[in-house]
Amino acid sequence: MVTEQDDAEPQCDALARLKVALKKNRRDAHHRYFQLATVAADGSPRNRTLVFRGFAPGDERLLAITDTRSEKLAELSIGNTAEIAWYFTHTREQFRLRVLVDCVTQSSQAPAGLQLRNEVWRGLSDAAREQFFWLPPGQPLGTGTPPDAGDAAPDTFALLFLTPIRIDHLVLAKVQTRRLAQTTEGDWHEQSINP
Amino acid sequence: MVTEQDDAEPQCDALARLKVALKKNRRDAHHRYFQLATVAADGSPRNRTLVFRGFAPGDERLLAITDTRSEKLAELSIGNTAEIAWYFTHTREQFRLRVLVDCVTQSSQAPAGLQLRNEVWRGLSDAAREQFFWLPPGQPLGTGTPPDAGDAAPDTFALLFLTPIRIDHLVLAKVQTRRLAQTTEGDWHEQSINP
Repeated sequence: MVTEQDDAEPQCDALARLKVALKKNRRDAHHRYFQLATVAADGSPRNRTLVFRGFAPGDERLLAITDTRSEKLAELSIGNTAEIAWYFTHTREQFRLRVLVDCVTQSSQAPAGLQLRNEVWRGLSDAAREQFFWLPPGQPLGTGTPPDAGDAAPDTFALLFLTPIRIDHLVLAKVQTRRLAQTTEGDWHEQSINP
Repeated sequence: MVTEQDDAEPQCDALARLKVALKKNRRDAHHRYFQLATVAADGSPRNRTLVFRGFAPGDERLLAITDTRSEKLAELSIGNTAEIAWYFTHTREQFRLRVLVDCVTQSSQAPAGLQLRNEVWRGLSDAAREQFFWLPPGQPLGTGTPPDAGDAAPDTFALLFLTPIRIDHLVLAKVQTRRLAQTTEGDWHEQSINP
């Protein structure tokens, strides 16, 4: 099951604090929105808001969804590193997560990934699902061919696994604090740094 | 004077709508926070939250401030293109602004830029000013030498001019709309695109 607060003990204190922030900011509908930066083919940066879709069951990977026709997927096929900036407005703290991105589409070979992709699809609202049957995003209004609607996840639906490798956590309290966590081969090391 | 709603007629409808969004979301303290994506020397993306400091008087450039010791300034010296993702939580709309970034520091040669830099400095809260006299950001806690405090803008204070060249405006209403504005040599062209 995909959950925001999974049962597995987080390996990383910074991720544990992220989960606390998710809980504390739950009153805001936008607490699940973060900004994801990627790099385009010409080497310039791109940035957009995505919706957090929970953690992969039992591990540290964040989930998001995207349309396979969107530019971000092409960008992620060039370099699979992205950076999330996630500001929580109620508790006034920012998490910057450097992540490695894996994408699961209809044609993926990984059974576990495909199963989770279907599960996430089934959990979406009708409004969220509808977008994947719209005309190609970013094209002039009304051009292109919409995919066929159906119960199963359409070709256009991709599940993104975002694996954090570095977490920079800044708290904008009266006394600002900033902590940096980095991982090498699954071991997390954390230190306090100057804000 | 640096203002959020300047008197000059905006040349671009998308910028006019951004100004409306700033007004409509004023009730939220975080309405002035946006995320800025840049690219690091190794070609991977970076992302962080910045505070919007108004528009440059009489033109379309957005203002932000930064510490010259921060990594983003080094990143912007490699490529001066950045992308802002700015989500307004009350009106539920996103502006993605591709921007060219110019940086004015103590040693800049442009008198107008330096004057505005001083003006922005004088307009900052004490809390915002203090940060520029802290130890170097991002270094292990307590290392380095803080700059000398004083009334004048310190060496560490840089003013960023962000000139929009492309604005992608997505409105998450019941019927989603998305409009793309692009400029070539000051002329803006706008079209509706598929959300």
